[in-house]
Amino acid sequence: MSGRTVRRRVRRIRLPDDSGPPQLTERSDLLAAEEPLGIRVAGEALTMTMRTPGDDIDLAAGFLVSEGIVGAPGDIASIRLCDGTACGHTGHEGLGNIVDVELRPGLATRPAVRRNFMTTSACGVCGKASTAELFVQQTWQIHEDQASIPADRLTSMPLRLREGQRVFASTGGLHAAGAFGPDGELVAVREDVGRHNAVDKIVGWALRQGRLPMRGCVLLVSGRASFELVQKAVLAGFPVLAAVSAPSSLAADLAAEAGLTLVGFLRGGSMNVYTRGDRVLAETVAAR
Amino acid sequence: MSGRTVRRRVRRIRLPDDSGPPQLTERSDLLAAEEPLGIRVAGEALTMTMRTPGDDIDLAAGFLVSEGIVGAPGDIASIRLCDGTACGHTGHEGLGNIVDVELRPGLATRPAVRRNFMTTSACGVCGKASTAELFVQQTWQIHEDQASIPADRLTSMPLRLREGQRVFASTGGLHAAGAFGPDGELVAVREDVGRHNAVDKIVGWALRQGRLPMRGCVLLVSGRASFELVQKAVLAGFPVLAAVSAPSSLAADLAAEAGLTLVGFLRGGSMNVYTRGDRVLAETVAAR
Repeated sequence: MSGRTVRRRVRRIRLPDDSGPPQLTERSDLLAAEEPLGIRVAGEALTMTMRTPGDDIDLAAGFLVSEGIVGAPGDIASIRLCDGTACGHTGHEGLGNIVDVELRPGLATRPAVRRNFMTTSACGVCGKASTAELFVQQTWQIHEDQASIPADRLTSMPLRLREGQRVFASTGGLHAAGAFGPDGELVAVREDVGRHNAVDKIVGWALRQGRLPMRGCVLLVSGRASFELVQKAVLAGFPVLAAVSAPSSLAADLAAEAGLTLVGFLRGGSMNVYTRGDRVLAETVAAR
Repeated sequence: MSGRTVRRRVRRIRLPDDSGPPQLTERSDLLAAEEPLGIRVAGEALTMTMRTPGDDIDLAAGFLVSEGIVGAPGDIASIRLCDGTACGHTGHEGLGNIVDVELRPGLATRPAVRRNFMTTSACGVCGKASTAELFVQQTWQIHEDQASIPADRLTSMPLRLREGQRVFASTGGLHAAGAFGPDGELVAVREDVGRHNAVDKIVGWALRQGRLPMRGCVLLVSGRASFELVQKAVLAGFPVLAAVSAPSSLAADLAAEAGLTLVGFLRGGSMNVYTRGDRVLAETVAAR
């Protein structure tokens, strides 16, 4: 497996405020690693993603959950990182940039939702009319999750996620996703150059730990909340998705439809709650 | 065409520092619109992207450039936003979420590089060994671009890009890309929930204006610089890609290979230059 950071020479240029001479320094700097990972199911290429190496098995497993292909640990018969020699592919031994998956007998690889949608819809895609089709059928009844999270527990989470990030501090270049348990404990943190990959790594970890659905839990992401992240949260059974930054309109629409609590702009001591606000207990805070 | 922002009810929760009672307000808020856009070539679905409506024709044209399918305005015979009635697809009239493209006679739709790579490579993907294959063959000789940009011109660009953003101010939720001309003038700004879409909108605009390759110009992006953005910059012929945030390792690798100047952490009065630093003139600043 490749490293999560890569060292590169960089020229730092700083222009002083006082119109003094520019300061140039040459130094060595750490960059977040980005490399392609191929995911193959039953020997066939399913997808490729640009990701930060590490937790590749979890990433592949989480991708399969997020696409609605698997939902329980037993759905995956085997999953392994191809190191070139083991799988008979020569010429790039040790690079480990392919995950080979075998599903349990009888479980077919359903085409991923977007691809499926593209090929079966006569007209490609068409906005609101297609929301239901875009959304993979949800397996868990998020609507019914009785989770209730004190607001001050939520506001404490971004700092705890940041503290759990190992690579960000050295590169400044990674997204993070974290899972918080029903009692507010941080149970997993994953990082990646791609926000969707960081979430897939969390979801794959949860699947393989036998923790799906993530009832009563909070999924926190370091950036914005898009449609895609809502979809991943719902398919993993999280009742709450919180984002440090803004959600998109479709994220809010799909959260409403799925019964997911969507929190945005979770910064400092405040937040915006877009859907299912009943799960966020501000009253409890008042009594502290 | 749908709007770029969508109004939603939101509950704002603020926890005061002094352990006073939480402040809850219900209000109406603007979210950045996110909707699917399908791109069809010769009647066949090529791809789907989640994007912020607006500049959809440019987005589709830019995507085709970024995938190495077209490189000159004449390569596109026709391109139009399907409004349901015009293209005979019923049931979602007026939504305008499909762009129909016809290429010039004789120009085949080459499969997009990633898909192509997935289907032709025996082993999916394999990291560094595959860098050359991942990289669409570049049409323009970026290496030879003689651009030289004063460092203080670069440091002025992020603020000018932000000033050019119309939707960010109202939603806080959009990425931006901007093209700056050889004299440092801001010639185009585009916004999108997806950073890659914002860049495709710039590239498609440039193609349709007959401005490709973007010799002597700077492409500025609001966030991080990934492999994908370097690829788009090179295929549009920009000699310089600048990012407000961190680049990835593969971004730096491909920039070096293509002869692109890659600037990261362009904030305040400073920047990191990762590749082809000869184009960034810090000495000129000293003489001001």
